[in-house]
Amino acid sequence: MPSLRRHVPILDWGRTYDRTALTNDMVAAVIVTIMLIPQSLAYALLAGMPPEAGLYASILPIILYAVFGTSRALAVGPVAVVSLMTAAALGQVAEAGSVGYAAAALTLAGLSGAMLLALGVFRLGFLANFLSHPVIAGFITASGVIIAASQIKHLLGITASGHSLPELLGDLWRQLPETNPYTVVLGAAATAFLFWVRNGLKPLLGRAGLPPRMADIAAKAGPVAAVLVTTAAVWLFGLDARGVAIVGAVPQSLPPFTLPPVGLDLVRALFLPALLISIIGFVESISVAQTLAAKKRQRINPDQELIGLGAANLGAAFSGGFPVTGGFSRSVVNYDAGAQTPAAGAYTAVGLGIAALALTPLIHFLPKATLAATIIVAVLSLVDFSILRRTWDYSRADFAAVSATILLTLIVGVEAGVSAGVILSIALHLYKTSRPHIAEVGQVPGTEHFRNINRHDVVTDPAVLTVRIDESLYFANARFLEDYILDRVIGDEGLRHVVLMCSAVNEIDLSALESLEEINRRLADMGLKLHLSEVKGPVMDRLERSHFLQDLTGRVFLSQYAAAKELSGGAAACRDGAGREADPAA
Amino acid sequence: MPSLRRHVPILDWGRTYDRTALTNDMVAAVIVTIMLIPQSLAYALLAGMPPEAGLYASILPIILYAVFGTSRALAVGPVAVVSLMTAAALGQVAEAGSVGYAAAALTLAGLSGAMLLALGVFRLGFLANFLSHPVIAGFITASGVIIAASQIKHLLGITASGHSLPELLGDLWRQLPETNPYTVVLGAAATAFLFWVRNGLKPLLGRAGLPPRMADIAAKAGPVAAVLVTTAAVWLFGLDARGVAIVGAVPQSLPPFTLPPVGLDLVRALFLPALLISIIGFVESISVAQTLAAKKRQRINPDQELIGLGAANLGAAFSGGFPVTGGFSRSVVNYDAGAQTPAAGAYTAVGLGIAALALTPLIHFLPKATLAATIIVAVLSLVDFSILRRTWDYSRADFAAVSATILLTLIVGVEAGVSAGVILSIALHLYKTSRPHIAEVGQVPGTEHFRNINRHDVVTDPAVLTVRIDESLYFANARFLEDYILDRVIGDEGLRHVVLMCSAVNEIDLSALESLEEINRRLADMGLKLHLSEVKGPVMDRLERSHFLQDLTGRVFLSQYAAAKELSGGAAACRDGAGREADPAA
Repeated sequence: MPSLRRHVPILDWGRTYDRTALTNDMVAAVIVTIMLIPQSLAYALLAGMPPEAGLYASILPIILYAVFGTSRALAVGPVAVVSLMTAAALGQVAEAGSVGYAAAALTLAGLSGAMLLALGVFRLGFLANFLSHPVIAGFITASGVIIAASQIKHLLGITASGHSLPELLGDLWRQLPETNPYTVVLGAAATAFLFWVRNGLKPLLGRAGLPPRMADIAAKAGPVAAVLVTTAAVWLFGLDARGVAIVGAVPQSLPPFTLPPVGLDLVRALFLPALLISIIGFVESISVAQTLAAKKRQRINPDQELIGLGAANLGAAFSGGFPVTGGFSRSVVNYDAGAQTPAAGAYTAVGLGIAALALTPLIHFLPKATLAATIIVAVLSLVDFSILRRTWDYSRADFAAVSATILLTLIVGVEAGVSAGVILSIALHLYKTSRPHIAEVGQVPGTEHFRNINRHDVVTDPAVLTVRIDESLYFANARFLEDYILDRVIGDEGLRHVVLMCSAVNEIDLSALESLEEINRRLADMGLKLHLSEVKGPVMDRLERSHFLQDLTGRVFLSQYAAAKELSGGAAACRDGAGREADPAA
Repeated sequence: MPSLRRHVPILDWGRTYDRTALTNDMVAAVIVTIMLIPQSLAYALLAGMPPEAGLYASILPIILYAVFGTSRALAVGPVAVVSLMTAAALGQVAEAGSVGYAAAALTLAGLSGAMLLALGVFRLGFLANFLSHPVIAGFITASGVIIAASQIKHLLGITASGHSLPELLGDLWRQLPETNPYTVVLGAAATAFLFWVRNGLKPLLGRAGLPPRMADIAAKAGPVAAVLVTTAAVWLFGLDARGVAIVGAVPQSLPPFTLPPVGLDLVRALFLPALLISIIGFVESISVAQTLAAKKRQRINPDQELIGLGAANLGAAFSGGFPVTGGFSRSVVNYDAGAQTPAAGAYTAVGLGIAALALTPLIHFLPKATLAATIIVAVLSLVDFSILRRTWDYSRADFAAVSATILLTLIVGVEAGVSAGVILSIALHLYKTSRPHIAEVGQVPGTEHFRNINRHDVVTDPAVLTVRIDESLYFANARFLEDYILDRVIGDEGLRHVVLMCSAVNEIDLSALESLEEINRRLADMGLKLHLSEVKGPVMDRLERSHFLQDLTGRVFLSQYAAAKELSGGAAACRDGAGREADPAA
């Protein structure tokens, strides 16, 4: 049943599962579980959900991904950017903290799961490619800034809301007088500690002789230490009575069975956000999965990944969670801790289940400021504005797309930002192809190679104009070519032949075919012959289904060299050192 | 002042205006005026406007176009497709025949004029190229069907409404019992007569010895004869008392000065329709202008045409009209009648002004059925479903775009149809470029030319894989290339070199550059070198601004022949008859 195995990868790796794999997976699971507890609570806070939802969103989704996903190291659960997008989407339909808000989160996860599944089943994973690398980089950077800004309120012990930078900063400014000093001290200490763990501890452990992999894991346990210490501090000194916001009572329960509401208005309001969350989540997850797979020479199947992530999100929808995806930091810990198969994820789920059942009373006094500190330190590592410099140096079109993405994400919000980035990238690409580069070419002496007359020392024949169009010919540039050729030939008295060198023409659509017919007609009126050279197989197949080749006044040459040799007659043969025959197949 | 002359072409042709030109223009103007009267009334009826609006829309716009437009033969005024789109747009904001309806028409014309002007000033005329030829052909065909269907009610003497085929036919079916027999007889006679004039009279006149141009003009006067005869019939037999709908009282007046209302809600509701009307009107007008200009070897400046049409529509907005553009039939008559300069248009405007002042009482008894008959006969010549067959034979993508355009125009409406056509064409183009054709190539024996190993008998070296990517490399296909190359090289043991032949690569954006870097790294891990060949000048310029060329494990060759010669070493030199040196510039 190879086809069933393809769609349910567990049947593949499950057959060879042995004792070594079990041990490795168990060790990784324990480490990841410990690290995931504060991270899950923190991202629930970011998404505006109750803390237990963060644990729930990490249990069933992990198991389902283990069954359907193809990556052996990917850890699925709440991640920063998707949690931010979740908060932005839900903020439009319900009040954060309300029952409707948590219910809408189930619908959002369910919609996203259904979309991911559909994209996977219909093999539409390539759609994610329309998010260009710079747009993704810009979006993640801008999201990181917004996430950090949205957590400042927890460090100050005030309330503020908004999903864009101006809203957030304005609200913070207005609430600033309400700042709680105890919270500030606690939050600042936690933030400073976590920054030190990330930037100072790891080199220290390294110098102390710890292997780099262990040092990495120890550094990643920093948030756990911060949680333990600050929770103890609140409990010991009764800081909650002095205004320090704490997580409070969390139900002791395994993930509940929940049914996402499916009201038409709710689904309509959440449709576009769910689509954007699905695509961003997929792109983030697959790039993590591919990075990790490349290290072990494994291959990731993007369409199967969509199915795995879809199943995970449906799992979140039916077990009290919110949208999830494969996260970078949790996956890297999983990988570094030695996870060998997706079973490691399942064991992690068991660990988190135990935590949800037994450990929740212990986090009653956990200050929200600590969770905010872990978020801020985590997301600031995502912020990297160097993409602006790199695109500026390399391509202004990419720069325009990335700037628009960053600006709109910061000022208007995540959905506007990512949509603008995609639309602008596509529009700029279309604009460029609508005004293609066109070069007049001549023969590089001593070769059969033809290059731009403005860039290379080449040989040309005044009776033969050879034009290389550097783009597929389609509706957007058909008229451009027509104008170019006709403008170029007018008044060029010695001209007898025009050759279109089609080495860069990968398609000729019907609009362009009609333009070529028009060019052919107009050149014939002027007594000029039109020829084509280096037409590719698929393009030629199509031309043969039209009348164009019968109407063409000139010929179609296999190579530009054959065209030049034939059309220039004796003169060209003189210039050509080898004096070979034109290809008989031309 | 060449720059002022460029923007006000009248300063150019006006300087050489002489007596011959004056005579020719006057003769053409008389002929066109006579033909335009029934046509203007009919298109006003189609647009749901009072009859005099059709005359008004032909007066000031013609004069303004004569000043700002570049075509010497184009006649501007109400045309069928734009009138249909006007009716569809206005139907959404007001009741046909109401005061608000006529006022909204001014706003629509004003918006369209402002948009056309802006597109012209910012040189955005190329945007119209995104309407592919098949989409335009399909849209005009479907519009013709809807226009004809919308006029059947006038032939039957019933009332019916709707802007899509199902609505129109359903309404007609329900109202059928109300049919007025006198109207049917009159309408059928007029329709039959006009069809005969178009298809039967012209050959007859030709056989009678009339020169073809005169026969053409005489045939085009058919509607005038139909108007005269049926108006007389209604007046003589008192048919209006028997239920035949007539044009009725029309004010005797020159075009009034009107101010288009600019309420925010109205402008918002009409914005998208105005944009579509502008683009469709521009495309229709410029294709007519270019067809006529080509016959006289004149050139049309598209951006200046936008300014001319913009001025004409602003004129319509301030003189009681509705959206106008350059029409095919009126322009052809103008051309055939011998118009030599845009002044012919100005004289036509004078003629129509006289008609609006003096002749309107004469059309009191003109039956609407006659106007409907002239519309039906005119638009059925636009209907040509052969575009479906042509696209089906040539390109399935074009076929999909044109089918969607036709279906949606017929079933949903003009705006949905043309939008779907544009969006689908672009989406299919992007889809194709996201999965480019990739060919492995080898050397055509006895040449320096390299072609697809599956289509040609070529020579290859097992140690060198040469891959030609038939598309620019950009975000949508960057990952596709990465997957293709890595899948292809895995398990190919004898391989040492991979050459990307970039003759069809017209751009490498930052996403694709990162993919190339990844391919380079992964191939290096496998002990393979990556080379490029035939990289174009503009692409190379950009690569030189990045780190890629420093990191590249292999080299960049000027020609594929140079690459093959160098990488295959002695073996290739043996196969190559001439044994030339690789190009030193590579």
